Amino acid sequence: MLLIKNARIFTPLSASGRGDLWRTATYAPGAMRVENGLIRAIGEERDIVAAARGSEYETVDAQGLLVTPGFVDCHTHPLFYQHRAAEFELRIKGASYEEISKAGGGIRFSVRDLRQASEEALLHVLLARLDSFLAHGTTTIEAKSGYGLSVESELKSLTVLQQGASRHAMDIVPTFLGAHEIPDEYRDKREAYIRLLVEEMIPQVVEQKLARFIDVFCEQHVFSARESVQVLLAGKEAGLIPKIHADQLHSSGGAEVAIEVGAASADHLEHAPAALDEALLRTGVVPVMLPGADFFLASPVYGPARRMIAAGLAVAIATDFNPGTCMCESMPMMLTLAALHLKMTPGECIVASTLHAARAIAMDHLVGSLEPGKQADFILWNAEAESEIPYHFGVNLVQQVFKKGVSVHENGKMTTLAGGLC
Amino acid sequence: MLLIKNARIFTPLSASGRGDLWRTATYAPGAMRVENGLIRAIGEERDIVAAARGSEYETVDAQGLLVTPGFVDCHTHPLFYQHRAAEFELRIKGASYEEISKAGGGIRFSVRDLRQASEEALLHVLLARLDSFLAHGTTTIEAKSGYGLSVESELKSLTVLQQGASRHAMDIVPTFLGAHEIPDEYRDKREAYIRLLVEEMIPQVVEQKLARFIDVFCEQHVFSARESVQVLLAGKEAGLIPKIHADQLHSSGGAEVAIEVGAASADHLEHAPAALDEALLRTGVVPVMLPGADFFLASPVYGPARRMIAAGLAVAIATDFNPGTCMCESMPMMLTLAALHLKMTPGECIVASTLHAARAIAMDHLVGSLEPGKQADFILWNAEAESEIPYHFGVNLVQQVFKKGVSVHENGKMTTLAGGLC
Repeated sequence: MLLIKNARIFTPLSASGRGDLWRTATYAPGAMRVENGLIRAIGEERDIVAAARGSEYETVDAQGLLVTPGFVDCHTHPLFYQHRAAEFELRIKGASYEEISKAGGGIRFSVRDLRQASEEALLHVLLARLDSFLAHGTTTIEAKSGYGLSVESELKSLTVLQQGASRHAMDIVPTFLGAHEIPDEYRDKREAYIRLLVEEMIPQVVEQKLARFIDVFCEQHVFSARESVQVLLAGKEAGLIPKIHADQLHSSGGAEVAIEVGAASADHLEHAPAALDEALLRTGVVPVMLPGADFFLASPVYGPARRMIAAGLAVAIATDFNPGTCMCESMPMMLTLAALHLKMTPGECIVASTLHAARAIAMDHLVGSLEPGKQADFILWNAEAESEIPYHFGVNLVQQVFKKGVSVHENGKMTTLAGGLC
Repeated sequence: MLLIKNARIFTPLSASGRGDLWRTATYAPGAMRVENGLIRAIGEERDIVAAARGSEYETVDAQGLLVTPGFVDCHTHPLFYQHRAAEFELRIKGASYEEISKAGGGIRFSVRDLRQASEEALLHVLLARLDSFLAHGTTTIEAKSGYGLSVESELKSLTVLQQGASRHAMDIVPTFLGAHEIPDEYRDKREAYIRLLVEEMIPQVVEQKLARFIDVFCEQHVFSARESVQVLLAGKEAGLIPKIHADQLHSSGGAEVAIEVGAASADHLEHAPAALDEALLRTGVVPVMLPGADFFLASPVYGPARRMIAAGLAVAIATDFNPGTCMCESMPMMLTLAALHLKMTPGECIVASTLHAARAIAMDHLVGSLEPGKQADFILWNAEAESEIPYHFGVNLVQQVFKKGVSVHENGKMTTLAGGLC
């Protein structure tokens, strides 16, 4: 049993109905009582501490510092083997992402690379990446396959994800993304690859209980809207929940697909037409903004967050962590980008990256806010106010991370030494 | 005595003449021999290790990882007291930096705040900031006063800087920036403030040996080009080396001032006219790019790095760390911004943030590259190639930092714990 006290607690509050999507609470000084990994009580310190009297608690004095829910990163691609820094250098020198892909780089490089990597090697890099997510305050991630693109390698990816989840504090929500790209060997017979997805991969993924969600990269030169519907409906019929990479580089019909199949989320949406916002709302699709990818591609266009917030949508933020278009595990970095480029306030950024993100992966009953009954997944910050998180950028203000009430990460202290004034 | 071996060493090489400004060396596997805090020998491992035989060395096995010089951050404002996260939130909601300044916020808030802060309190926050710079690989900083704007508070700022330098591993190069803004009490009598700068502050700063450089914020609504010349020449006559904040928000004549007074560097330069590049080169002015400020102000205009590199200039990169327009101590973050927005290659980014930055603060004889005779200030990276530094962004890839041959920072390891697949 754990008692956090003397904290400035900032948390989203679960919406009781429409119009409450951005409701938050601040308890200062606040306290939180944790039992068996779950939040038992949270609120003003005097109330919580009084109710805890008579019981034995391990007490953490937050010394007035900020406590928020752990981040929920609802869109990541951590299942790749080698990074692609060399390709980054080509892009700086002027090559476009699409040019690199057409020349066999991009996702296609990662596919060749993952196929030859052993499960052990993949698990090793995955665990290191999970450590980095955790160190930046993320306590739950959605994680996609999609660099295998064969029955064997997609199953290998999802199996490694399962192994990673069993060895790491991170909660991992697995998504099958066999429709991430057409693999080279199917380049001239895309219908055959779609059949492979629908008739072989989806049944085996479901049979082996390796994924909860199914996703498609709907984009020019990748999967068309029609193909996306076909794959997502096949997944849905098999018991997976649809998600979609929609309208990132072009307006490709992705948002319409999300509405048609009843997706849990539509992600990217940089070029999604405003006319669909109302239908996204009606269908309950969570729009996921991925500003790190826009930043990393030096795109002039970012997601329409303010427009969608005004339309009443539960906008979420995620990293899109992947080796090609966003090599970043840090959700605080995404909050800075969301503040600067999406014009989301610090409070909105936190709600979008915790509670709304949890909703995008159907985990909002368990995580995403600090409320009684939910998992005690939280961050103790080296900061006093939530505005500092996007403001003080490029550094890690996370001081300590708790998962299910257990301290799972604490940032090291630094040494000093006499230097000189020059 | 220290021997680093089995490293991939990447370092700029001091220019032997014009046209060699971006010359680098890669030693892989490379080694470096350090004695009395200085680099004694560096090169291919087999040569260095053979020459070291027969002597007693503490050996560091870099395990194939990247070693670069420590960063030189040649433009920082770390001498403020409280952060300004609340103002950041106003900007996100639509207020411009200039509007906030006119309403008494911005630099003017920090001036009121610093004036009431004790030396002890200022030293405390300064040391924490120096820790953060060091943790991100910076081993030398230039640091400006400029939030005092009175004789007493400017001297207090520079004194605290001196105290910080005596207690911390960081080498600090102090700059007097009394001409950062017109303080409120001189708003209607700017000539009187210029007289105060010239007749009282500069003589006392020089008398007490509190600064090596003098700087002016030359910008609309701050100091005009004519006023900047007046202050910088007064400083130069007293023995300080001129620097200038030039052409950041508007074309304000700052680059011309730099040429006229023979400044060591002209910083920002977003709106500097191309016609002056040749004169900047002839005068030996180092153009310092500050992409973090452009990013943080969500500016569409970044510094003209590629144009200036093509003109033969020794372009440098720095953080501009300050509470209003760039709350970031991380040079790796600046490298990402320089790669994405200035189109500088990873190798150019490193040269610009080490050797060229050292030149901007007249420290290139001591730091900025790993060459015999220079200080053994270097970074051991959790990376194998220099391209990973700008590529893998928003996280800290620094594994260990050495200052004058001594390990002064090592990043903590993370704990893991069994979690679950959801």
